[in-house]
Amino acid sequence: MTKKEESRMEQRETEEQLKERISRTGSEQQLKEWISLIEPASAPASMAAQKRWDSIAKPLHSLGRLEDAVVKLAGIYGTADIRIEKKGLVIMCADNGVVAEGVTQTGQEVTAIVAENFLDCNSSAAIMCEKAGVDLFPVDIGMARDTRVPDHKIAYGTKNLAEEPAMTRQEAVRGILTGIRIVEEKKKEGYEILATGEMGIGNTTTSSAVAAVLLGEPADRMTGRGAGLSGEGLKRKKEVIARAIALHRPDREDAVDVLSKVGGFDLAGLAGVFLGGAIFHVPVVIDGFISAAAALIAVRLCVAARDYMLASHTSKEPGMGMILKALGLEACLDCGMCLGEGTGAVAFLPVLDLAAEVYRRMSTFSENQIEEYKELGEV
Amino acid sequence: MTKKEESRMEQRETEEQLKERISRTGSEQQLKEWISLIEPASAPASMAAQKRWDSIAKPLHSLGRLEDAVVKLAGIYGTADIRIEKKGLVIMCADNGVVAEGVTQTGQEVTAIVAENFLDCNSSAAIMCEKAGVDLFPVDIGMARDTRVPDHKIAYGTKNLAEEPAMTRQEAVRGILTGIRIVEEKKKEGYEILATGEMGIGNTTTSSAVAAVLLGEPADRMTGRGAGLSGEGLKRKKEVIARAIALHRPDREDAVDVLSKVGGFDLAGLAGVFLGGAIFHVPVVIDGFISAAAALIAVRLCVAARDYMLASHTSKEPGMGMILKALGLEACLDCGMCLGEGTGAVAFLPVLDLAAEVYRRMSTFSENQIEEYKELGEV
Repeated sequence: MTKKEESRMEQRETEEQLKERISRTGSEQQLKEWISLIEPASAPASMAAQKRWDSIAKPLHSLGRLEDAVVKLAGIYGTADIRIEKKGLVIMCADNGVVAEGVTQTGQEVTAIVAENFLDCNSSAAIMCEKAGVDLFPVDIGMARDTRVPDHKIAYGTKNLAEEPAMTRQEAVRGILTGIRIVEEKKKEGYEILATGEMGIGNTTTSSAVAAVLLGEPADRMTGRGAGLSGEGLKRKKEVIARAIALHRPDREDAVDVLSKVGGFDLAGLAGVFLGGAIFHVPVVIDGFISAAAALIAVRLCVAARDYMLASHTSKEPGMGMILKALGLEACLDCGMCLGEGTGAVAFLPVLDLAAEVYRRMSTFSENQIEEYKELGEV
Repeated sequence: MTKKEESRMEQRETEEQLKERISRTGSEQQLKEWISLIEPASAPASMAAQKRWDSIAKPLHSLGRLEDAVVKLAGIYGTADIRIEKKGLVIMCADNGVVAEGVTQTGQEVTAIVAENFLDCNSSAAIMCEKAGVDLFPVDIGMARDTRVPDHKIAYGTKNLAEEPAMTRQEAVRGILTGIRIVEEKKKEGYEILATGEMGIGNTTTSSAVAAVLLGEPADRMTGRGAGLSGEGLKRKKEVIARAIALHRPDREDAVDVLSKVGGFDLAGLAGVFLGGAIFHVPVVIDGFISAAAALIAVRLCVAARDYMLASHTSKEPGMGMILKALGLEACLDCGMCLGEGTGAVAFLPVLDLAAEVYRRMSTFSENQIEEYKELGEV
């Protein structure tokens, strides 16, 4: 825009519109700057890790995708010397106005109850974290109530996306920036890997809506029972999502537009965590469907962010497999989990730990005086 | 057989044949007595565990098959009060005469090298065990060489099953009994769960042969690359298996006959471990293809033994899924592993631990003042 044009625009805008535009441009500019820092993971470090695996005294690639995960870690850290001692779980907690449509089994009040329970080690994820040696960080990124959970609130819940956009574009960007800053903080605190989780009644509805638009799939295929919705409720949920997409016509090519119109604050925050992982070279573990939808947003904002993500489990939600496929990722756990909170991501960490331990400690063929296994296909 | 018939038989038998028959009858009698002790797992305890899960403040069945595994543990222990603190991995090590046919990538000497490495914490499984707090028990159930590994040798390796039966019926029974006695010992030592593993060059060949016969599948469908066999080697392996089955015509209805003709000592020992688990109420975790083939033998000897088995991972071998399906079990890990040694079973244990921790510690809906999630289908 030329200065002349700007001046003309300003004349037509109210003061409030002007403020909104500048603020929006400001944050989006900030987000763009962050994203411009993201580089693909280190290919030489990944190759060095692969070489190490291939020299270890065991059949080639016999730890399967666990080996691939360790190779990925090397690329992220930029060194084949892997350490994943200090682990955290970031849980984005937020409320969703769409619960007014009867798309969930429980009420909005459950979000705050469970979120506070994280602090008292009285939730499934918190108990798993304690056992697995993972530090837990719940974040209030937009709950309808104030609680003891650290406050990074964008607003007191989103609007009902069946009637109006869930949030403004500016709010969506602020949510993403919040996630990025949390990773910045965790990196400074020495965290070497972050798992993702969420708590927010109604957030499989927003995730299905976001994923349906970004993948160009009908809402019907992308929508499941969430925390155990009945047949009647599932039908209503699908209708609400299809209706909201028809109403707001989110722009598939603009992930922030999709997020703001049919998403949630937890999705915004988690998308930020995935971008933050890519910016600060911290591997971020995808949990289930909601976390995967956020990962998809992050990848649509910056395709190289994918290099910094690890899949953990294939959840029970029907859209999960489709998102993972779109991300080009494969999970290692497949046990029909659908609890959320980060439980799947946390359950994957001890398995990854075991693989990393073999990677670090196991001796090589030459040390063991065993002839090396040949590549498949050689005779 | 009437006494008269017996007496007629004896006249026709040489002394050696007689001894063999009595000894065989003796051990088989012993095996039958053990098996007669096996009862289905406790339904009331399983139901109590299921009730506990359903009362916990989280969506119903949202930990998926991890919940089922804990319910199974309750049935095995006979109480809903689950404890899986003391964990062991039993690794059956044995050699297979069939390696003479060129069905493997490495030579028989590797079995003894790796088996001794278990004792020095210099194998993938041993390193994982140390990290996961699992005690490791390698067993020499029939290696071609003597090593520092505790000696329960049935013989110095099996015969080449392409030319003659791998072992006598008596040897097969002795192998199974050895496995049972090892579980008896581990139970006395306080082990609450046992993972299974094996080391034996050539043992995917024997496992494919056993599984093909027991499932009535062509050898072709049941045979994979093992530790990374080339295309040429794979073709040879399939031919050898098909030829051996045609030569010995093992009786599908008699698992001991199948085991003795085309099996291995490791399979015999592991089948015994699975039966031992059922006899002594110790849950036994299946590892990959070989361990699953042994589990199948155990179930064919006593169908109730299945109640005492847990699946861990779906390995890369093509027959794995077929065996698990025949056993009616589903695994929780799926990462394309094919290392053996018990690595998949051990990798599952920390995941199971996390689920058991939630089961034990998580509060109920009423404690949390959250309305209970309804069953699927209810409105």
